[in-house]
Amino acid sequence: MPMNKNEANKRLIEKINVLERDNDKNFSNTQKILLTTDGSITAILDVLYGKIDLSTLEQHTEIANEENAKLIDSEAGDEINFREIIMHKDGKPLIYAVSYIPLDRLTEEIKCDLISADIPIGRILKNYRIESRREIKNIFIEKPNETLKELYGTDEEFLSRDYVIIHKGEILMWIKESFPISYFTEI
Amino acid sequence: MPMNKNEANKRLIEKINVLERDNDKNFSNTQKILLTTDGSITAILDVLYGKIDLSTLEQHTEIANEENAKLIDSEAGDEINFREIIMHKDGKPLIYAVSYIPLDRLTEEIKCDLISADIPIGRILKNYRIESRREIKNIFIEKPNETLKELYGTDEEFLSRDYVIIHKGEILMWIKESFPISYFTEI
Repeated sequence: MPMNKNEANKRLIEKINVLERDNDKNFSNTQKILLTTDGSITAILDVLYGKIDLSTLEQHTEIANEENAKLIDSEAGDEINFREIIMHKDGKPLIYAVSYIPLDRLTEEIKCDLISADIPIGRILKNYRIESRREIKNIFIEKPNETLKELYGTDEEFLSRDYVIIHKGEILMWIKESFPISYFTEI
Repeated sequence: MPMNKNEANKRLIEKINVLERDNDKNFSNTQKILLTTDGSITAILDVLYGKIDLSTLEQHTEIANEENAKLIDSEAGDEINFREIIMHKDGKPLIYAVSYIPLDRLTEEIKCDLISADIPIGRILKNYRIESRREIKNIFIEKPNETLKELYGTDEEFLSRDYVIIHKGEILMWIKESFPISYFTEI
């Protein structure tokens, strides 16, 4: 717990301030909220654009190595689900996300929705009334890789963050989300 | 669960659309997010304004009547905490909130933070790592009462919503939040 009980969000505020200062940028309200909220990103996009869609670009089960096991507080050798998705509105890409999910922490019905259908995790949690909390890890600017360049048709920089969703004291999933720095700059 | 697993936020989208149409308004992204998010409102204000402050205007324990007991899924006659607060930045009022809390559902330490100190509920949940979910009930436009007129120095209309925070399957609190309709309209 923070020393001062009113400083719970100090780290988040500082991250945004440092990122703006170091890159000589002023983020819009919407960008700041998308980068820091502990609420559902899908719900926000749904309300801003009308119901958005999710397309799964890639999904497979893999064996965790040291590096990705650490992200989900799991062990190297455990089975984890990798998912790469794009949230879009009528084909216009909005937010790109990759996630790692330790499959043995999910119920069968959630596992099924997650693996077999194009349902955003925010909607899955809501449908099953899952109580959880989100912990934001890093917020950063990065150069796009080939996938991002192709999806968005741009080579501008991207705003990204990664966070975990925690349920019953365990990490249910690690998620990294990205969008071009020119997105979500309007009122 | 919604018939279609991808329609979890349909009700929220419709509420905003109807409110805009019936009142001939276009809400800003920030307004839409503040009215619909299931994340922490304090965290959003913290990031938009730098750490904000909360002042408790009124707080007392009362005996629930039929009407307010219903809001928190409690019984008339139960002891509930009423809290009226204003979140502000350097004295400028941002969001006004009233809440009902069934005291017997809180741990002693949370009860203590909530009653004795000016700590927003979003920060309390974060400090104690409480897993929860939020269910938005109503989103509406209303005329300000005398308290709001005086606090904000305006008699313009207010945007309001009410929602519940659910923890371990029980309502931990019912909250109503309001802000003037001209607020949060800039990027």
